[in-house]
Amino acid sequence: MSININPIGIVRSPYIHSDNTPLQQGNSNIEGEILISDEYKEGIEGLDNFSHLIVLYHFHRTQNEPLRIKPVLNNRIHGVFASRQANRPNRIGFSVVRLLGVENNRLRISGMDIFDGTPVIDIKPYVAKFDSFTPDKTGWLIESDELIGKVDEGRFV
Amino acid sequence: MSININPIGIVRSPYIHSDNTPLQQGNSNIEGEILISDEYKEGIEGLDNFSHLIVLYHFHRTQNEPLRIKPVLNNRIHGVFASRQANRPNRIGFSVVRLLGVENNRLRISGMDIFDGTPVIDIKPYVAKFDSFTPDKTGWLIESDELIGKVDEGRFV
Repeated sequence: MSININPIGIVRSPYIHSDNTPLQQGNSNIEGEILISDEYKEGIEGLDNFSHLIVLYHFHRTQNEPLRIKPVLNNRIHGVFASRQANRPNRIGFSVVRLLGVENNRLRISGMDIFDGTPVIDIKPYVAKFDSFTPDKTGWLIESDELIGKVDEGRFV
Repeated sequence: MSININPIGIVRSPYIHSDNTPLQQGNSNIEGEILISDEYKEGIEGLDNFSHLIVLYHFHRTQNEPLRIKPVLNNRIHGVFASRQANRPNRIGFSVVRLLGVENNRLRISGMDIFDGTPVIDIKPYVAKFDSFTPDKTGWLIESDELIGKVDEGRFV
């Protein structure tokens, strides 16, 4: 079984090269835009009443889909599903961004960690009651905690 | 441009019919499983060290992909991207679940709001620093706040 996905829009971002892209949105106040395609424009009605959005997108620049990886922030091997690495099966990216405003089909956002030109495949409102949790275990990432927010070369993996 | 997605596994859940499925994971302590396909099994190495997972899946039972919808929890029309409704372009579902344990290719999870038989397309570790936010605007959902957790007929939209 294979599922067919059609982009609903595209990201406009200052990030062109991986060496200046932040490691996840937590480290970024950079602004950008999501341009919604004309045929999906009706779908963003009322979105301007939300402050935070879940954005799903396609890591269109990844080259392969390994199952085991060595993260930027860690020097051991891990399963790719225990990481946020872009090179992954199905190449789907997830970010929570702040919505600054909506003009016509343009969503002005901040908290950018997404490459310019990235195809967007879904947008959902972020709702704390559904989406905010306090994990008591964060695996190998706990070892890298002091690095997050400092490392700025390569995407967070 | 069209993107091809291949499921990495499948959800085993007590939810067969929409009339007993909770409205998002916040309302559920029900347990279920994600069965990872053999060919992706290497990718879950180390996942057992995380307590919460982001699960992306395919709303395989939806019938259509409207751009404007009337949510279960609200009696006004909204753009579909301002909702969590399953009937949406690309039919991608997002849930955060608690990981109870891993045995071979089985992820035992709780906080289920996903139908039995749902194809899983990605799993990522949930990391509070990246994923936990406190929105100051939650649109029409604020009007429905007292309903969330009470309504149990139909999926949350």
